[in-house]
Amino acid sequence: MKTRVVYIAGLGLIGASIALGIKRDHPDVEIWGYNRGEDSRRIALEKGMVDRVTDDFLSLAPEADVIILAVPIQQTIAFLQDLSRIPLKKDVIVTDAGSTKFEIVKAAENYLTDRGISFVGGHPMAGSHKSGASAADVNLFENAYYIFTPSNLTTDQTIPTLKEILSGLHARFIEIDAKEHDRVTGQISHFPHVLASSLMEQAADYARDHEMVQQFAAGGFRDMTRIAESEPGMWTAILMTNPAEILERIEDFKLRLDKVSELIRQEDGDQIWNFFNHGRLKRKEMNIHKRAGVDSFYDLFVNVPDEEDAILGILELLRGTSVVNIHINEENREDISGILQITFKNREDLEKSAHIIETNTSYQVFID
Amino acid sequence: MKTRVVYIAGLGLIGASIALGIKRDHPDVEIWGYNRGEDSRRIALEKGMVDRVTDDFLSLAPEADVIILAVPIQQTIAFLQDLSRIPLKKDVIVTDAGSTKFEIVKAAENYLTDRGISFVGGHPMAGSHKSGASAADVNLFENAYYIFTPSNLTTDQTIPTLKEILSGLHARFIEIDAKEHDRVTGQISHFPHVLASSLMEQAADYARDHEMVQQFAAGGFRDMTRIAESEPGMWTAILMTNPAEILERIEDFKLRLDKVSELIRQEDGDQIWNFFNHGRLKRKEMNIHKRAGVDSFYDLFVNVPDEEDAILGILELLRGTSVVNIHINEENREDISGILQITFKNREDLEKSAHIIETNTSYQVFID
Repeated sequence: MKTRVVYIAGLGLIGASIALGIKRDHPDVEIWGYNRGEDSRRIALEKGMVDRVTDDFLSLAPEADVIILAVPIQQTIAFLQDLSRIPLKKDVIVTDAGSTKFEIVKAAENYLTDRGISFVGGHPMAGSHKSGASAADVNLFENAYYIFTPSNLTTDQTIPTLKEILSGLHARFIEIDAKEHDRVTGQISHFPHVLASSLMEQAADYARDHEMVQQFAAGGFRDMTRIAESEPGMWTAILMTNPAEILERIEDFKLRLDKVSELIRQEDGDQIWNFFNHGRLKRKEMNIHKRAGVDSFYDLFVNVPDEEDAILGILELLRGTSVVNIHINEENREDISGILQITFKNREDLEKSAHIIETNTSYQVFID
Repeated sequence: MKTRVVYIAGLGLIGASIALGIKRDHPDVEIWGYNRGEDSRRIALEKGMVDRVTDDFLSLAPEADVIILAVPIQQTIAFLQDLSRIPLKKDVIVTDAGSTKFEIVKAAENYLTDRGISFVGGHPMAGSHKSGASAADVNLFENAYYIFTPSNLTTDQTIPTLKEILSGLHARFIEIDAKEHDRVTGQISHFPHVLASSLMEQAADYARDHEMVQQFAAGGFRDMTRIAESEPGMWTAILMTNPAEILERIEDFKLRLDKVSELIRQEDGDQIWNFFNHGRLKRKEMNIHKRAGVDSFYDLFVNVPDEEDAILGILELLRGTSVVNIHINEENREDISGILQITFKNREDLEKSAHIIETNTSYQVFID
């Protein structure tokens, strides 16, 4: 069998981590990489993440069996157009890693039809605050959703072939319609981002005349504005390429605010209570408590006393286990302290750890 | 000097923790407690938090030198009215612990004028997901803001006397106009709560037709809806007693959403970028990074490698230090991992710990 060539455009965190994941299961696959910046290109080559690099995207595309575009959304669309102008291998598979999918799928269908090229949209749902090839992590996608959004250029072989090549990512592959992807991420990610940045903007404006805003901003406000600190470029591209869904969610949300306003004006305590209680019950029902969705982590809850070194004692018991995160859950009222939440990367570590804590301490342990 | 009597109405988490705080600096002060439910009454008495208890609020009020109302807002207002009907000690000081202040101050001025009673509103800004006297913690208010909102029944002696009696809480006492208190907490607490519950309601409704909402809800969404799980009763009372400020913030916010919608419709990428970047810069500027406002915690940031037992290694170095919380900071994109954030209860522990980590590891340490 001839050596297959996977060409990854963009050797940032996502592209370079995909390269490592492919190499884990397929040391035989040859990986080529494009990157505009020199640093990540050099690091990816030196560390053996890729076998060959270029700063000229089109130069290596004609020889590739699979092309993975892991560049910003607008660049992805531009590269799809560029690919339409050069000869590519027969049966080449093209995919991408952008955060919105409909516009990208539309661009692929627009530029690549009737060329014998197969295309499927891709969205590996993982990330980090780190960036660049130097931050690449072979486990970045472990248990994370990796969404494929089929196009009319997706054949019966496209997704199975990609799943096979990407098996070393240990991701959870899933297929969704591109428009539905954008609707769902619009609701749980893109629109909330607009909310967070708007709240931050509002509070900052208010703080000019009400200086205590700065001092009293607490846990709740901090949580609600955390994502407002994200890199603006990516979120601008998301709003530009998923406008209809986000606009619709904004209008829907304004009506909900109007409804709350009306209840406040009517001094309708019962209905206000129902409103808050509904949100509370719905959140408790959500998978959010079972697994952190995209993060795909496994959580253990331990009811520890508020004692010095309690966390240390637990971690000593779990020495050698891959603890992804650990924190004391701040809940309710004006938040402080509570239940110790430990996050693991897989169910095996979770269950093993629950057993260890249960047999070695008197603390209550929950998995929910 | 005669033994002073402090009468605390409500032996829940707040009332019972205040009792412990008073006893710490003033073992000589006699503390009496009212509580409707029997459990907290019994626990507070058995554990010596209070010296005497009742389930009849008015019965002990006439003999008290200081009355602290630590019951729900509506109950606080009802008790102020009840107090107007019975004889109280000359120069008695009445205060409360409610989350909104203007309505309570107004009620006090309305019911207690011309009686020789002095009143100041109070808002100790701390809490926990735990409740009842059994959760009482002498350190609950350590470094937390304790806000006084003067009324026209506040004399020159009212606040100094309360500060002296409450010195054992180790809180940071601060005076603000009641209306301004409600404006500021409306912006950074009450209105964000409406946002979080509305977002939760919207996503739950959307999930009925778009089931992947459940699966893909990730870190950002989780953070933004966390406070929606709070106990509905308290938040209903807050909306009922701070209606004008919250309504005004809702209308202001809708205009901000309209502005974003307009930018999306105009496909104005530059202005969308500016919008996100503004939120980012403003949040970075906020005190939120220095100290968690209300929580009043001190944070240390350690750039640890993504290695097994890295957290354990750090905690071993800090054995015996009062670590309030520890977690890996999830930032940016689709969040995973990052910087280890350790929260301490005071600056001394923070600085000592920073020094210990710096001298015993090669990790970068930040205090910001």
